[in-house]
Amino acid sequence: MNIAAGVDIGGTNTKIALINEEGQIICQASFSTWSAKDEFHFFELIYRHIQSLCQQQPHLKLIGIGIGAPSVNPKDGSIEHAANLPFKQKVEIVHALKQLSGLPVHLVKDSNASAIGEMIFGGAKGMDNFIVITLGTGLGCGIVSEGKLLTGAHGMAGEFGHTLAVENGRECGCGRKGCLETYVSATGIKRTYFHLMAHLNVDSTLEDLSHLNSRMICEGALQGDLLAKETFAFTGEILGRKFADLVACFDPACIILNGGVIDAKEILLDPTTKAMNDNLLSLYQGKVDLILSGLGANEAALLGAGALVWMG
Amino acid sequence: MNIAAGVDIGGTNTKIALINEEGQIICQASFSTWSAKDEFHFFELIYRHIQSLCQQQPHLKLIGIGIGAPSVNPKDGSIEHAANLPFKQKVEIVHALKQLSGLPVHLVKDSNASAIGEMIFGGAKGMDNFIVITLGTGLGCGIVSEGKLLTGAHGMAGEFGHTLAVENGRECGCGRKGCLETYVSATGIKRTYFHLMAHLNVDSTLEDLSHLNSRMICEGALQGDLLAKETFAFTGEILGRKFADLVACFDPACIILNGGVIDAKEILLDPTTKAMNDNLLSLYQGKVDLILSGLGANEAALLGAGALVWMG
Repeated sequence: MNIAAGVDIGGTNTKIALINEEGQIICQASFSTWSAKDEFHFFELIYRHIQSLCQQQPHLKLIGIGIGAPSVNPKDGSIEHAANLPFKQKVEIVHALKQLSGLPVHLVKDSNASAIGEMIFGGAKGMDNFIVITLGTGLGCGIVSEGKLLTGAHGMAGEFGHTLAVENGRECGCGRKGCLETYVSATGIKRTYFHLMAHLNVDSTLEDLSHLNSRMICEGALQGDLLAKETFAFTGEILGRKFADLVACFDPACIILNGGVIDAKEILLDPTTKAMNDNLLSLYQGKVDLILSGLGANEAALLGAGALVWMG
Repeated sequence: MNIAAGVDIGGTNTKIALINEEGQIICQASFSTWSAKDEFHFFELIYRHIQSLCQQQPHLKLIGIGIGAPSVNPKDGSIEHAANLPFKQKVEIVHALKQLSGLPVHLVKDSNASAIGEMIFGGAKGMDNFIVITLGTGLGCGIVSEGKLLTGAHGMAGEFGHTLAVENGRECGCGRKGCLETYVSATGIKRTYFHLMAHLNVDSTLEDLSHLNSRMICEGALQGDLLAKETFAFTGEILGRKFADLVACFDPACIILNGGVIDAKEILLDPTTKAMNDNLLSLYQGKVDLILSGLGANEAALLGAGALVWMG
């Protein structure tokens, strides 16, 4: 049976999976993106992990590799100036992995890999106009218009996480202030918790503030921590308001949320939906759905990367 | 020689022109949109004006009608719930004009007609990814991605004028607060002048504040009126900042400004360009041009409407 390798290169870990044509993950592995000594070592690590997965499944025939990564230059198959990866220079990943594997290699922006994953195997099956928002360390945004990925003039469309959410707001890693992802990503949610600890006269019931992350805040909200509940209300208010603007620009039929933060489910979805609808121009009322991804946590990008191989 | 009729339905006037395949306006006419007693009278007025233009040019053979209008439903060729037109109900304009003329009739949103005008006859010739912003009574936005108009799931993409520019800001006709068009349209510029009369301790040198419009403010700025100069600086600051967000979403190669307000030329363009570049994410720096339309004032929509006929 033929099989595709999907690779999802993240700022923390790089995930690798063997994926069949039905979108099932046969087996997977991951390694710390920062464990690579340099880019050549990084390419080798990816290829060795693919080889090792294939050796576990000798009846499968690998026919190609699909990669989702940040800061992709789609013109020449490279990664350039990636803020969250160990190599800052231009790295020609498609060329390198073709040489190592002798197979076709495809590369798209990580957020677009997620959009493809949702389109081929997830909640956007059969949809022509939708947007996938990934809430993780940052905010990823993949846009599909009339069945095609919107890439822009230089392959850099969809940087919705770096549009203004709050004038003169929080400092962002990009050097500007008030970017959306400083409020609604996993990192942004943690910052909001600290903001509310300062702003409200309420004590935290969370045990380990030194290692605080969005999952702990979500669990705190479920267990009645007032600051955690308020954190998600605040997050949903900002995210929903910005979604109303996103709808006004793109007129999607659906916005699909994925990424680790959506483990919070209704705690995040409810205030976000309310704020979106409260701010939506009347002509869009009732015409756009906001849903949580039905794919496993962080699987959309991996599946979308694999789908690149099947799409050819 | 074959000729196309282009119709640009605006909130004030409806313009009609005969346009040849090279994008030359052979002759044109206009009438007050509000002079129509009802929609049937309105359709008749359009058709009678087209007939009258054709009678002036008996050597030309009319082969079709192209219409740009607000609040278009592209699915059934109607105009629906148009805030700035005299008829609020659904009016089936394509059907009606087909019956009156016996010719093919095409309909697109006014802002998309402008984008087509720029793409076929104007500054966007040969470009695949660009955005046309029309600053008139409101703000129109037509988006072209990979050579195709971006329409969205319901034909309602591009409502950039109704995205948030200032939190809890100016009241907008759409019922919300702080929409971009309340700041940067011709109407918005007038509101800014009054705001600055209240805010700054500076006297106006303009003669007729009762009939103030953006053209008078532009002339005032050229003649050294401090409030008028400050008005365009304020307008450019807001518009440029929002353009940085627009670039982050769509990654266009170019943004083209048209509409009556661009008569202000550098007085508007310079502060807008500066604010856009100051707020642009570094990966877009130097990659997006902001230019003024080279087409005659308000001609882009008319030419684009005509081009619909030539495009078939």
